Amino acid sequence: MDTKRPTMPAAEEILGGYFPVLDHGFVSLVDYMGSDEDVERAARVSYGFGTRKLSQTRGLVRFLRRHRHTTPSEMVEFKFHCAMPMFVARQWIRHRTASVNELSARYSLMPLLFYTPQLEQFALQSSSNKQGREDGAAAEVYREAVERWESVRSEAGDAYRWLLEEDVAREIARIDLPVSTYTQWYWKIDLHNLLHFLSLRVDPRTQWETRQYAQTIAAMVKRVAPLSYEAWVDYDLESRPLTRVERAILSQLVEGSDEGLSARDGAAVSGEAMKEAGLSPREIRELFEKLESPDHPDFELDLTSMMSADEVAAKMYEAVPSTFE
Amino acid sequence: MDTKRPTMPAAEEILGGYFPVLDHGFVSLVDYMGSDEDVERAARVSYGFGTRKLSQTRGLVRFLRRHRHTTPSEMVEFKFHCAMPMFVARQWIRHRTASVNELSARYSLMPLLFYTPQLEQFALQSSSNKQGREDGAAAEVYREAVERWESVRSEAGDAYRWLLEEDVAREIARIDLPVSTYTQWYWKIDLHNLLHFLSLRVDPRTQWETRQYAQTIAAMVKRVAPLSYEAWVDYDLESRPLTRVERAILSQLVEGSDEGLSARDGAAVSGEAMKEAGLSPREIRELFEKLESPDHPDFELDLTSMMSADEVAAKMYEAVPSTFE
Amino acid sequence: MDTKRPTMPAAEEILGGYFPVLDHGFVSLVDYMGSDEDVERAARVSYGFGTRKLSQTRGLVRFLRRHRHTTPSEMVEFKFHCAMPMFVARQWIRHRTASVNELSARYSLMPLLFYTPQLEQFALQSSSNKQGREDGAAAEVYREAVERWESVRSEAGDAYRWLLEEDVAREIARIDLPVSTYTQWYWKIDLHNLLHFLSLRVDPRTQWETRQYAQTIAAMVKRVAPLSYEAWVDYDLESRPLTRVERAILSQLVEGSDEGLSARDGAAVSGEAMKEAGLSPREIRELFEKLESPDHPDFELDLTSMMSADEVAAKMYEAVPSTFE
Amino acid sequence: MDTKRPTMPAAEEILGGYFPVLDHGFVSLVDYMGSDEDVERAARVSYGFGTRKLSQTRGLVRFLRRHRHTTPSEMVEFKFHCAMPMFVARQWIRHRTASVNELSARYSLMPLLFYTPQLEQFALQSSSNKQGREDGAAAEVYREAVERWESVRSEAGDAYRWLLEEDVAREIARIDLPVSTYTQWYWKIDLHNLLHFLSLRVDPRTQWETRQYAQTIAAMVKRVAPLSYEAWVDYDLESRPLTRVERAILSQLVEGSDEGLSARDGAAVSGEAMKEAGLSPREIRELFEKLESPDHPDFELDLTSMMSADEVAAKMYEAVPSTFE
Repeated sequence: MDTKRPTMPAAEEILGGYFPVLDHGFVSLVDYMGSDEDVERAARVSYGFGTRKLSQTRGLVRFLRRHRHTTPSEMVEFKFHCAMPMFVARQWIRHRTASVNELSARYSLMPLLFYTPQLEQFALQSSSNKQGREDGAAAEVYREAVERWESVRSEAGDAYRWLLEEDVAREIARIDLPVSTYTQWYWKIDLHNLLHFLSLRVDPRTQWETRQYAQTIAAMVKRVAPLSYEAWVDYDLESRPLTRVERAILSQLVEGSDEGLSARDGAAVSGEAMKEAGLSPREIRELFEKLESPDHPDFELDLTSMMSADEVAAKMYEAVPSTFE
Repeated sequence: MDTKRPTMPAAEEILGGYFPVLDHGFVSLVDYMGSDEDVERAARVSYGFGTRKLSQTRGLVRFLRRHRHTTPSEMVEFKFHCAMPMFVARQWIRHRTASVNELSARYSLMPLLFYTPQLEQFALQSSSNKQGREDGAAAEVYREAVERWESVRSEAGDAYRWLLEEDVAREIARIDLPVSTYTQWYWKIDLHNLLHFLSLRVDPRTQWETRQYAQTIAAMVKRVAPLSYEAWVDYDLESRPLTRVERAILSQLVEGSDEGLSARDGAAVSGEAMKEAGLSPREIRELFEKLESPDHPDFELDLTSMMSADEVAAKMYEAVPSTFE
Repeated sequence: MDTKRPTMPAAEEILGGYFPVLDHGFVSLVDYMGSDEDVERAARVSYGFGTRKLSQTRGLVRFLRRHRHTTPSEMVEFKFHCAMPMFVARQWIRHRTASVNELSARYSLMPLLFYTPQLEQFALQSSSNKQGREDGAAAEVYREAVERWESVRSEAGDAYRWLLEEDVAREIARIDLPVSTYTQWYWKIDLHNLLHFLSLRVDPRTQWETRQYAQTIAAMVKRVAPLSYEAWVDYDLESRPLTRVERAILSQLVEGSDEGLSARDGAAVSGEAMKEAGLSPREIRELFEKLESPDHPDFELDLTSMMSADEVAAKMYEAVPSTFE
Repeated sequence: MDTKRPTMPAAEEILGGYFPVLDHGFVSLVDYMGSDEDVERAARVSYGFGTRKLSQTRGLVRFLRRHRHTTPSEMVEFKFHCAMPMFVARQWIRHRTASVNELSARYSLMPLLFYTPQLEQFALQSSSNKQGREDGAAAEVYREAVERWESVRSEAGDAYRWLLEEDVAREIARIDLPVSTYTQWYWKIDLHNLLHFLSLRVDPRTQWETRQYAQTIAAMVKRVAPLSYEAWVDYDLESRPLTRVERAILSQLVEGSDEGLSARDGAAVSGEAMKEAGLSPREIRELFEKLESPDHPDFELDLTSMMSADEVAAKMYEAVPSTFE
């Protein structure tokens, strides 16, 4: 189709293609509106007449992001079609600034697809971090877990099928499906809110399964708004807040001059002094992490994994209890 | 405690009390801010100097609601503590204009409490309405359903307990809990958005289980803002939209005069004429329903069922897998 | 440009064109995402497997709107560039569900363009309606008003120019510009929230000047999503809520049968009876209005008035205080 | 009044009192819901069964804020009554997460009160910062500005009065009031969104006049939720983001060990090296500022300035065009 709207070839290349996530899930970019130039255009309406046109798109996009001028980023919009386990959907839906249409188990039959973690993701409860995982669990525990999952799902699936056969209301029939069951939705969100979502959901503190979705989406953002994506990595994702007390501490160790930044020779702040300045032991550990040289992560799609909408629909359709179509 | 804030004795009477909903759920009003007088006060800042003070609180509250002047209703706020099956929570959370803090199955152990429908609610899929229930199902189907539910839950609960004993990360251990498992949250919302929620969730098209929560909350609203509650019943809950074509049809049947409203003698609009005017068969059925004399529903709490926070906490605590406390 | 995205030729025809509103304002549709088919597609993810595909796009779009299933309409997005007097902007901005980037008088120089009402719009305070206008005012009052406006604006404009020449901060220099001064913004909103905005802002109770913008935007919606537009006119714009008491009254006057709807011969409800049923005198008047045969409004753009972005920018530029560029 | 709701004596002390801001404006805390303990309570529903109760309120509130766990802060609510010049209101209203009821100039007569900057605030356009002020302007320029303001306001006020006398619709009569005219509103917002607002509006890059309101509100927050206020100062207001490149640079200058943090002897990063690492000249200046020892600001109310609602209402009333009451 021919359009006068801003169009991004790198986004068009994947538009409507389906990228697998986890064992039965997917993310597809199904529509988008605008790109980096539209962030700039919206910002320029604020910086209108009588302001020097000093910056080009990249400089302005980076300035805006660095200084948390986020409203121009709301001018770019994305729409995704996604399938994910219900426990992932339940975390995801907490972001309220998106529009969502989800498959309804009251109206529709649910495809009987369940998420099974792989051995690599089957880990013990973290002791340092009250949420999250740590070391891997033993292989024999994993084997038993897989058996138990299969058994629960088989029984729950049978009950679902049987209730449907008895013509029991779908909204009742589905009440014992496990939260590992895949659901799906359309999800529409603007660039500002999407980058905020990604900052939280690409983070290691987010459950591993949810992160796989966020990483796939991040790679799609890069194709729609590459300059905003780059600024997000530099100023949000790999940025860390330096608190009031931390700034006071660093000012004792480092000084700026016309030559640049330099260490103050011999300067040191002891653990005791940091504690007196108000940092908890945990905050001291956090400060050390902030001062480590950060990663420079990148997110890319594997184009060879891209499937068509028809392939994906057929796979879903097959998993729907069969006597009902 | 002593306060200068607007205080409603009928609300204070139930504040912090827990009202049972379904077999293991509850709703508690834990805080509120403002009442009908605060809706009026906010409206009066708009109708400030130079406007005649014509109305008293009831009249103004009713006028505002009738004319969809909803912003003054945002000035009253409610906070609830609720426990509900996850499938109810998943519908409820779609209302994005509330603040929510939910029990996290990544951090916490889940009480093993599951919702079991009663025979009265165990119904067949509606044929007219693609969602929802209709006639009751046979008692022997119900008996088998209960057996299947017990079996699935027992097995899923055992798997959960076993995974926790093996110290597997909680966020993995929970993935096969069924959506009938109870979760809980704090939920905070303003009066305008709450009444919109209630209009949708008290409605028969909402799943019966969710409606039980909405009815309990409606009865709490009545104690915080009785005039707004009354106006909501009259102008929202029992109101129906008369569409463009329906108005044209009714104008042929009814006329207003100084004496009042009267039927136009002999006037009639045939089904064929309604169809030609643009109504589908379904819309004709809807129009007939709109013209039936409506209910005058009322929502009341059963004060004898009120429990204390401690009782409820103890009950939840008992259901948590035991070796872990 | 070539795109795989849904594209609407009627929208492309006006995309980026500027349509005059009032004496110096405009509205331009600068981008859009999706159309009626995308409302359908989002709804179909809810009505997934095992539901009969009974309806075509128009039927489904109308069903969704009639039953207030509004989330699928959030899947279509619009972006506008608009210029309007500040007093219009101040009403408009109260709709919080849009993204906005406005010309900043702190950064930028304001074009000295002011709104002057025409004689036709120069009206007396309404006596029945505490806001709004009624009969036209006398022509000689209008002439004096124009003189006074010219004088205030000339003096305020001179002060603005002089303060800028003295290099006083722009954020101070602008504080005495009148609210008739034109500002401009980018405004992005989804179809659901836009139609809600239009229902309120096309309404006669909205200030006439704001209504001119809403009517222009309504005509643009018609080009992007014509079926949604049509359903909005039928089910929202020209719909009126029939309240609980009004339904009870009408049920005494009209009855439905297999043949259709008919007036109950001789049935009447007196003004006294309506009062006893709970209607105020004002509500009785409102009921009569609801039962009148409604308009069937339509909104169309005058394509001959369409200007290019460059023409509009040049006009704005000329009005900026001149020594500053 | 007696209540079971959480009550804060420091907030009760000022509840309903009016604090002057600028020459004719004010802020009053008229209601609140919850305090720091309610942030904790909401967070604890997430960290439920099977989590060690390690932290007390202060520690938890600080942890939540440091780690951007913001949803529990949404559980505390504030309601303010404020009067401010329209140009301040226009910036303020851009924060969309609050509920607002503003004095309507369509319904009401506007008090003819205008904001006049003091000499201290009468400054030149900043050259470094494209918005904002810098050095003070000359006293004689100020004197002329005051004369011009008085003249514009006198003429605009006369026109307003005259149009009202001619019974012209209020919505037309007001169109030439300058944006220095005071308006007023009720404003309701939760703690999370309020602190975000304050971070932006207490900042020196915000127009000085708006900042005076933010500072007054910050002092009120301190009385409702003192621990959240303290955490906000430490982790938000005086925090600065350390970007990806800045972290890489600092890691060359500072190292952590069991003893604490110390400067790496002789380490330095030249301006040239910072540029090569990707920092613009402006970012280098920003980095230097981040590494300066920060202020430890505090916000306090002057209780001696507190006025009653009646005093304030009388003052407003006097300024309303007189023949109209």
